[in-house]
Amino acid sequence: MHTPGISITRRLRQTPFSKKVFGAGVSNFTVYNHMLLPTVFKSIEDDYHHLKSAVQVWDVSCERQVEIVGRDAKKLVNLLTPRDLQNLSLDKCSYAPITNISGGIINDPVIVKVEEDRYWISIADSDVLLWVSGIATGLSLEVKIFEPDVSILGIQGPLSNDLMKRVFGIDFENIKLFSIVKVPFKDTNFIAARSGYSKQGGFEIYVEGSIYAEDLWDTFFEAGKPLDVAAGCPNGIERVEAGLLSYGNDMTIENNPIECGLEKFCSPLSEKSYIGDKVLRKIMKTGPDKIIKSIEISGKPVPLCMEPWPLYFKDKKIGQITSAAFSPNFQTNVSLGMISIEYCNERSDINVRTPDGTRSAKIHEKSFI
Amino acid sequence: MHTPGISITRRLRQTPFSKKVFGAGVSNFTVYNHMLLPTVFKSIEDDYHHLKSAVQVWDVSCERQVEIVGRDAKKLVNLLTPRDLQNLSLDKCSYAPITNISGGIINDPVIVKVEEDRYWISIADSDVLLWVSGIATGLSLEVKIFEPDVSILGIQGPLSNDLMKRVFGIDFENIKLFSIVKVPFKDTNFIAARSGYSKQGGFEIYVEGSIYAEDLWDTFFEAGKPLDVAAGCPNGIERVEAGLLSYGNDMTIENNPIECGLEKFCSPLSEKSYIGDKVLRKIMKTGPDKIIKSIEISGKPVPLCMEPWPLYFKDKKIGQITSAAFSPNFQTNVSLGMISIEYCNERSDINVRTPDGTRSAKIHEKSFI
Repeated sequence: MHTPGISITRRLRQTPFSKKVFGAGVSNFTVYNHMLLPTVFKSIEDDYHHLKSAVQVWDVSCERQVEIVGRDAKKLVNLLTPRDLQNLSLDKCSYAPITNISGGIINDPVIVKVEEDRYWISIADSDVLLWVSGIATGLSLEVKIFEPDVSILGIQGPLSNDLMKRVFGIDFENIKLFSIVKVPFKDTNFIAARSGYSKQGGFEIYVEGSIYAEDLWDTFFEAGKPLDVAAGCPNGIERVEAGLLSYGNDMTIENNPIECGLEKFCSPLSEKSYIGDKVLRKIMKTGPDKIIKSIEISGKPVPLCMEPWPLYFKDKKIGQITSAAFSPNFQTNVSLGMISIEYCNERSDINVRTPDGTRSAKIHEKSFI
Repeated sequence: MHTPGISITRRLRQTPFSKKVFGAGVSNFTVYNHMLLPTVFKSIEDDYHHLKSAVQVWDVSCERQVEIVGRDAKKLVNLLTPRDLQNLSLDKCSYAPITNISGGIINDPVIVKVEEDRYWISIADSDVLLWVSGIATGLSLEVKIFEPDVSILGIQGPLSNDLMKRVFGIDFENIKLFSIVKVPFKDTNFIAARSGYSKQGGFEIYVEGSIYAEDLWDTFFEAGKPLDVAAGCPNGIERVEAGLLSYGNDMTIENNPIECGLEKFCSPLSEKSYIGDKVLRKIMKTGPDKIIKSIEISGKPVPLCMEPWPLYFKDKKIGQITSAAFSPNFQTNVSLGMISIEYCNERSDINVRTPDGTRSAKIHEKSFI
C-alpha cells in the first residue's frame, strides 16, 4: 500500500526537537498525545539494525508529563493506580497502570516523584490530564494539574551508557532499571531515568525547559560521532520482539491490567485502595480469561497490522493479533496478541487470518528478545 | 516541504468507512480522537472547488460520540457545559463548549439528547470520555459513560439537500440548522442533523451500527452520480474562510470560551451552575483580554501553519495566527488568530511573522464567507 501523507497543523503539536528531527531526515510520523512522534528515518529495517548495534537519540516528547502538585498529590496518585506508590522514593520511577472503576486501563505511564507532593505522570497515548483533572474536580482535591514544559529525549541502544558518559561525565554502568539520576546541563539539571521503549538499554532524559532542547540534541550528536549516533525512534519491529506493549495497539480501555500481563504492578494489599480495586481484586483471584502473548506467524513478511487480525483454533475464534512485523534477526514474523486463557500455552496448532491470507501461528512462552 | 508519511497502526483507528475512503483515493490524513481523518483527496484546492460547487461525502467518524446514560445524565451534562441545556429537546442538537474549573476549554462538541436521560457528546479532538468519567467517578454519579458504535457521515455542499432527498425520500429544505430528523435506512433509522464543519450547507448522519456504514456510503455514491458527488473532508481553506474554529489549532485548554467568541453559548443565568462558572461569569462581566478574529495576510500563498505565527503592531507582540491558507476564491491568504482586545478592531497596520518572512495583515470584522 502507498503510504498516505500526514497533514501537519498546530493541533498535531511539534516538539522542542522537531526542527532537529526534520533536519535528521525523518520519513514517517505517527501522532501520540496530539504530538508528532517519528516512526521511520531511513527505513524501519535500517533503523532496527542501527538501534541494535549503536546508539540512537529519540524525540519522545510525545510522552507528555501530567504534573500533579499540592497537598493531596500523594493521595490522588495512589488513588489512580493499582500499584502501591505510597513509598515511591525520589531516586526511582515506577511503571504504573492507571485504571477506571471497571478496572479498564486508561493509560500505562511511568510515574516520577519529582519532590514531596509533586509528581510527573509520563503518559502513553490518552488524555490522562483530563481523567486526573476530572477525578480531582469531582473529589474537590487540593492539587494543581497541568502539563509542564518537560519533553523526553531518549538515548537508546547498546552504546547508550557510553554516550551518556561522554555527555554528562557520569558513569552510568551501575544505574539500575527505573533508577533516577540528576544530570547537569549548562545552568540546570535534568532528571534522567534508566528506562525507555526498547530492550537495547538506555535512558530517558526529562528535559525541563524547551530552550535547552536543541543544544542538548546537538551535544549528543557531537559527542556521539565516534559511536555512530543517529536519530531514531521506537522501532515497530524491535518493540514487538521485546514484547513491549503499546497502549491503543495491544491494549485499550476495554482491557484490564491482569489480562495484559501487568498483575505484578497491581497491589494485592487490601489496605491500598484505588479506582477499580474491587473489579481487579476479583480478577486477580479468579485469573483472567485471556492474556497477551508473543506469537510467531509463519510465512513471508506480513502486511501492516492496521486492525486486529483474528486468531483461530480450528473454526473457533480464540483471540486476536494486534501488532506484527517481520523480524530481520529471527527471519520470521513476530507479533503480539491476546488469546483465550485455555489456548494460551506454548503451541503451534493455531491460525491467524491476515489481510493476505491465513497463516499458521505459534505461541511463545516468552518474548522473542 | 516534502509531506512526511503517516504510519498507520491499530492505535490510529480506522473507521467503518475506511475501506471506502482508501478506495476513493485519499491522499493525506490527520489523526483526530485517535482515529484517521482524511484531509486531502485530489488536492486541497480541487477538493475546495468541488465542495463549493457540488456535494461531498465525508468520513468524519473521528467526531466520536461519548454516550452518557442513566439517572444522573441530565445533571451531569448540564454540569459539563456553560450552555444551558436543561430544556434541550429531542429534535435539536446543540453546540456547547465544555470547560474545566479554570474556564479553560476541554472540548467544543455538539450535544445530542438521544432520549430522556441519554445523551451523545459529539466531540472535537480530546478525550472527553476520560474527563466526563473522571467527574462522574469523583462525584459518584449514577451514569454509564462509554463510546457507542456510532460514526458520523457528513454530507456537505450546495447540493446536499438534493442528495439527502434522493437517498432518504424526505424533503430537507425546511430543516433548520441544528435540527434533527430521523432518516430511514434498511431496517433501521439514523439521527441526521443539519450541521457540519463547512459553510456550504449540509448534514451529519449519526450512523449507529458499523454494519450499515459501507452500504450507506455506496447508496450516497449511487444516488449522487448526477450531482457529481465525491469523497471529501473538512477543507483547510474553506473552514478558515468560514471562521470555523478548530480545537487544538485555534483554541486549546489554555483558552476560555469568551475569548474564542463563544460567549453566546455561555449562560449568564446565575441559576445554571457548571464547572468553571465562577471564572467565566467574571470574564463575561469584565470582557476578555483577547479575541479570535478573521485576518487577511498579504502576499503570495503562505506556507503551512504548523505552529502559531506571532502578530505584531510595530514592535509589540499583540497576538498570533493559528490557521492560515491561500484562498483561490479571494486570491489572498485567509487566517484565524487571537489578538489583544485593544488591537482587535478592523485595521490593516499590523504584521505577521511567517516562516518565510514578515507580511502585513488586516483584521476583518467578520469571517470571509
